[in-house]
Amino acid sequence: MEANILVVNCGSSSLKLAVFDRLHNKLVSALAERLNTDDAFVNIAHADEPISLPAGASHETALRALIDALRDRGILAQDPAAIGHRVVHGGETFRGAALLDDDAIAAIGECAGLAPLHNPVNLAGIAATRTLYPNVPQVAVFDTAFHQTLPPRAFLYALPEAYYRDWAVRRYGFHGTSHYFMSREAARLLGLTPATTSIISAHLGNGCSISAIRDGISVDTSMGLTPLEGLVMGTRSGDVDPGLFDYLAGKGVSAAELHEVLNKQSGLLGLSGQSNDMRSLCELAEHGHKPSELAIDVFCFRLAKYIGAMMASLTALDALVFTGGIGENSSQVRQQTLSHLRLLGFELDPELNQSNGLYSDGRIDSADSRFPVLVIPTNEELVIAREALRLAEKSQPV
Amino acid sequence: MEANILVVNCGSSSLKLAVFDRLHNKLVSALAERLNTDDAFVNIAHADEPISLPAGASHETALRALIDALRDRGILAQDPAAIGHRVVHGGETFRGAALLDDDAIAAIGECAGLAPLHNPVNLAGIAATRTLYPNVPQVAVFDTAFHQTLPPRAFLYALPEAYYRDWAVRRYGFHGTSHYFMSREAARLLGLTPATTSIISAHLGNGCSISAIRDGISVDTSMGLTPLEGLVMGTRSGDVDPGLFDYLAGKGVSAAELHEVLNKQSGLLGLSGQSNDMRSLCELAEHGHKPSELAIDVFCFRLAKYIGAMMASLTALDALVFTGGIGENSSQVRQQTLSHLRLLGFELDPELNQSNGLYSDGRIDSADSRFPVLVIPTNEELVIAREALRLAEKSQPV
Repeated sequence: MEANILVVNCGSSSLKLAVFDRLHNKLVSALAERLNTDDAFVNIAHADEPISLPAGASHETALRALIDALRDRGILAQDPAAIGHRVVHGGETFRGAALLDDDAIAAIGECAGLAPLHNPVNLAGIAATRTLYPNVPQVAVFDTAFHQTLPPRAFLYALPEAYYRDWAVRRYGFHGTSHYFMSREAARLLGLTPATTSIISAHLGNGCSISAIRDGISVDTSMGLTPLEGLVMGTRSGDVDPGLFDYLAGKGVSAAELHEVLNKQSGLLGLSGQSNDMRSLCELAEHGHKPSELAIDVFCFRLAKYIGAMMASLTALDALVFTGGIGENSSQVRQQTLSHLRLLGFELDPELNQSNGLYSDGRIDSADSRFPVLVIPTNEELVIAREALRLAEKSQPV
Repeated sequence: MEANILVVNCGSSSLKLAVFDRLHNKLVSALAERLNTDDAFVNIAHADEPISLPAGASHETALRALIDALRDRGILAQDPAAIGHRVVHGGETFRGAALLDDDAIAAIGECAGLAPLHNPVNLAGIAATRTLYPNVPQVAVFDTAFHQTLPPRAFLYALPEAYYRDWAVRRYGFHGTSHYFMSREAARLLGLTPATTSIISAHLGNGCSISAIRDGISVDTSMGLTPLEGLVMGTRSGDVDPGLFDYLAGKGVSAAELHEVLNKQSGLLGLSGQSNDMRSLCELAEHGHKPSELAIDVFCFRLAKYIGAMMASLTALDALVFTGGIGENSSQVRQQTLSHLRLLGFELDPELNQSNGLYSDGRIDSADSRFPVLVIPTNEELVIAREALRLAEKSQPV
């Protein structure tokens, strides 16, 4: 039996594991949530009996518990062939996945100032699996790396030049693994060559971002220095007037307080006053709840504007692609968004859209649409597993 | 001889006057600058001899000096028929120009929290002309009023709903008088009815903003709660990641300091490190100065993205219109901006563009452009004069 590939994704209070075989089939997923709280718990898909975690369990404790449980089930009976880690921020250092030697780990630490909530927990996960599997090649796959091809006109803010030079202030972009996956999968579904395929990819989950991908390469994206900029999200505001900080300072709201509000109490939740969950909002709106209707309206309109904005980076458009929890499942969001873009030539087929493109190779556009429109379920874990194995094999030539 | 119309535009440290006759011909312009400083000075177009101002002259002192000088020249020999004031912020109170009675003046004062640098000086100008001409009808024309037709999806930020309800946080938009003028002038030049004409209007001066105008009505615009949001400007950053404030707080930059930098040391000046003046930057770039080239590149790309974004509010586009110092005079900026938008179908005629549309009724698009593109010199003073006279006549029926 050939060894499997382990994929590790440490969030600020969560941990996801996935195990893939070498044919890229996912064998199992496991999840730990509310880590470092009294309610820490783990869950393994299709498991018979629950696994308990001690209160306040850390990422490392949860990782060990999950791996023990998987070993018991015979899924990680032997050491994995490679371990792939999702790492949020690779700064300008990482333009692709990286084999995790001491230098690479130090460099990830140096990027932690750009993602203080994420890189340290990513590093904690890396340290834990290195202890558990000292002889297994480990690979980091970065959320930012795919966007390192943005040209300066797209990554520079109009700030004093020293802000970029001294403090690395620029647009980095996130969800890169998902945008990359969409571009390759769209090319495959459309029968095109990835290196000459141009798409606009909309990743709409709890976080939301959009990218322009020209000839297989990311050339613009909506998230910026941080994952707060751009589209309306579950609890994040996306774009606001930068003058808001000064205006609200006059109302007694500190910058730190506003930052917290923009990240956790804004977006769909802030506008609706009810929920950060698009399904709930669509139900509420259907029952006449006006603030929920408005939240959806603002979400879709902002998205439509960004689709228009992304056109400025492309000379051809092979497809507009939707993914993520909202992008894959909300026919209403897709329909409402594209209703704003008739002038650009986007037209949906109502039935294909309704069935999320499930029976049409992802296609949901109508015959008279100027551009194909696709729904593609994203699969970041698969990309991480592939990259981990690819770099692991490169590092250990037979 | 019929009485003239006086137009007053008080900026934070400047004062502009213009006198129009009742056929809307401008008779004279006068300008006072660096008010409240030791270098206060005034200038009257085509004047023979300079007028001196005392050091530290206020808006009121300058206004009196200028009006005295105009009287001496016989231009305001009799009281004006109407006085029109540019007022920056009308909040949600003013959806159009307003005759200045005590209630209207109080309401402008109530909007001052939204424009603390502007509304108070606008009110100082109003008070001064009311003292000088107690019997002349005075009218306020607001920068924000034309954008009061924005739908909620375009004017709401994705913030907690209380921010709008309690603190009036929303997109207001500015340069409304100029965007209005462009839409009417475009309709006239194209032989269309204003009420069914849809344009995208780009006002590119020291401040820059863009609007989508659908059937004569503003439906989206790039400036927001304040004139800081949106396009790259002379010294203003336009859009930045709202996470920038928190990130730079970690570098010891306070929110107040950053606000100052975003307003006064960013934009073209920040990127180029040289100048906030587009002409200078184009010259520098031509001589090989890379940062200036980059500043122009970022400026044009951001503008192109916004043109794409504005398409989301339109079902038809009768023209893309450029105005303002840069919009009217920089063929390079127009060319470079539209080079990003070939996918949307914009094509310029190089010669018409080179001559700023001067000999082609403003048209600069080529025969194969999907949409007309126009250069239209803006004339906010003319709109203010017209509105002042219209409301003055309404208030004093013969």
